[in-house]
Amino acid sequence: MVKKKSVTEFKQERDRLNNIVMKYAGLTTKRFFSLDSQAYRDDGVLPVKMKELLGLVASLVLRCDDCIKYHIIRCHEEGLTDAELEEAMAISLIVGGSITIPHLRRAYDSWEELRQAELK
Amino acid sequence: MVKKKSVTEFKQERDRLNNIVMKYAGLTTKRFFSLDSQAYRDDGVLPVKMKELLGLVASLVLRCDDCIKYHIIRCHEEGLTDAELEEAMAISLIVGGSITIPHLRRAYDSWEELRQAELK
Amino acid sequence: MVKKKSVTEFKQERDRLNNIVMKYAGLTTKRFFSLDSQAYRDDGVLPVKMKELLGLVASLVLRCDDCIKYHIIRCHEEGLTDAELEEAMAISLIVGGSITIPHLRRAYDSWEELRQAELK
Amino acid sequence: MVKKKSVTEFKQERDRLNNIVMKYAGLTTKRFFSLDSQAYRDDGVLPVKMKELLGLVASLVLRCDDCIKYHIIRCHEEGLTDAELEEAMAISLIVGGSITIPHLRRAYDSWEELRQAELK
Amino acid sequence: MVKKKSVTEFKQERDRLNNIVMKYAGLTTKRFFSLDSQAYRDDGVLPVKMKELLGLVASLVLRCDDCIKYHIIRCHEEGLTDAELEEAMAISLIVGGSITIPHLRRAYDSWEELRQAELK
Amino acid sequence: MVKKKSVTEFKQERDRLNNIVMKYAGLTTKRFFSLDSQAYRDDGVLPVKMKELLGLVASLVLRCDDCIKYHIIRCHEEGLTDAELEEAMAISLIVGGSITIPHLRRAYDSWEELRQAELK
Repeated sequence: MVKKKSVTEFKQERDRLNNIVMKYAGLTTKRFFSLDSQAYRDDGVLPVKMKELLGLVASLVLRCDDCIKYHIIRCHEEGLTDAELEEAMAISLIVGGSITIPHLRRAYDSWEELRQAELK
Repeated sequence: MVKKKSVTEFKQERDRLNNIVMKYAGLTTKRFFSLDSQAYRDDGVLPVKMKELLGLVASLVLRCDDCIKYHIIRCHEEGLTDAELEEAMAISLIVGGSITIPHLRRAYDSWEELRQAELK
Repeated sequence: MVKKKSVTEFKQERDRLNNIVMKYAGLTTKRFFSLDSQAYRDDGVLPVKMKELLGLVASLVLRCDDCIKYHIIRCHEEGLTDAELEEAMAISLIVGGSITIPHLRRAYDSWEELRQAELK
Repeated sequence: MVKKKSVTEFKQERDRLNNIVMKYAGLTTKRFFSLDSQAYRDDGVLPVKMKELLGLVASLVLRCDDCIKYHIIRCHEEGLTDAELEEAMAISLIVGGSITIPHLRRAYDSWEELRQAELK
Repeated sequence: MVKKKSVTEFKQERDRLNNIVMKYAGLTTKRFFSLDSQAYRDDGVLPVKMKELLGLVASLVLRCDDCIKYHIIRCHEEGLTDAELEEAMAISLIVGGSITIPHLRRAYDSWEELRQAELK
Repeated sequence: MVKKKSVTEFKQERDRLNNIVMKYAGLTTKRFFSLDSQAYRDDGVLPVKMKELLGLVASLVLRCDDCIKYHIIRCHEEGLTDAELEEAMAISLIVGGSITIPHLRRAYDSWEELRQAELK
């Protein structure tokens, strides 16, 4: 189990690393990063909240903790409810099996952190 | 590239194989199959169409052709539009990369078959 | 769903392809193939039947149909019972999730073919 | 390489996170957790030790450190021997390739910790 | 084992399916397809042959038959030698383990078909 | 995001763990470790630098941080240039998708550490 990072530390580390990537990145890499943002943009028929939920489910079944945390933060920003999250998590768990459980645990840990911060 | 099966043949083969599974299945397996149906049921806050779309995206990034085809059929039954499908497929493609392209091709092939069948 | 191959056709195709591999294979590849056989050999503490079952579970959660079929055939040769197979399959299904179901179906289809052939 | 956690810390963190999961979990998630326990229960033909070994091999080839550590602890509790572990690890390594080596290293690290603790 | 398709049939089916994808594709999908071509282009420091070999190794360890076949064809067009192919395949096999063997077999089967066609 | 380890700490921890593996390892495991070294040896047609780059791309798309770091270090030792690295990383990113981005970030972070150390 990886030491939990707070959401703030997570964002800072992500920015630091993105700066290093961009120092070396060529055109293909830069364009991919731009496409990646574009895919979740509010410019189509699916609400952004739903696009982020799709990104979360994809990240969960592929078991990438950083990607999960990123989409948990974004889902929270978009106003996803506990119930919506839970139904999507249940589908991820059924599709991906018990091997996803450690990631599901950390996903809910981040969610809990974000929900607790609302109360402050 | 796997020989394309029509949606009808797909369902028949699936039923034949499910019968064999159930001949051997114990309690854990049977309960899992039941949980699997339950996860996509219309009993919560997310519309069934959205649950099936989550299942589709999970199947696409995990690159399972049978699972993709099943959820494509279910999404079609639930009235998913071309535009909704396309936005979800684009997210799957960005998350999962070019390795998902052969599966994305076969997904659209099944979708096209279902859309053409509407015209008959 | 991939067209079912009989166990006999499966073995013939496997031999044909292995001959092509060996035509091109260098020392590392040849040694790996030899190590691969060695890992399941009857020269330790775990019975061969159990080693093949470990190979089957690994193949199921990694979702490789050819590997699954190979280990199903070997488990059958080693006298694995229906009940032993079922418990291992249930564990694979729980660990790997519903994404393994199409492979589990084809695994039981091969098992059924081998069990039916006993009656002849 | 992730900072090693002692077996005790691992269990505490796991309990803390499970409490958060259960705070949010719905029926499907709860039932899946219950099925997950059931699959390894002593109620069939395979000994529990062997079921845990199947879980370990599945976790190793799928490369989930937390799952590996959990099953290493359970295998130790069930009295698995060094030789039995080694044969199962060798099969996992051959099936999963060198990409599993970092996980195999950490698995043996936890095993060594548990074996050393026996001497105290 | 999937029924072998000739290289010609493979290309025709690929074109047919790409037409269907492009019928539905939005901007993100189209741009991704274009980036995908760009990544292997002859506009940098690595020779195209080496870029295609990187694509082949990535496809082999991720176990995507269509992607493997595509890069095998491209590697052949770029004049890759048997020896170069074999060394890259050996690395893929060691990294990815025995679970890649069925894909490695089919890769060499396509390579053999292309090498035999040279003699005609 | 996992706490960054310096290249020196990474090597020390790797040695410590390898000693534990070798304490328990049987013949199959030992031979596999030896084959693993052999696959990247300077005894064929592909330059070692290119073999290590193949290992890096395989590790990136399979998303194994330790494997990535190991090959980044080896590529650096073999004199890989920034431009060669970047083209291989771009191919990995396109093949593996955005799910590889956290690993790509950490790969460049290690590369930057190695490049900065050259200046001292």
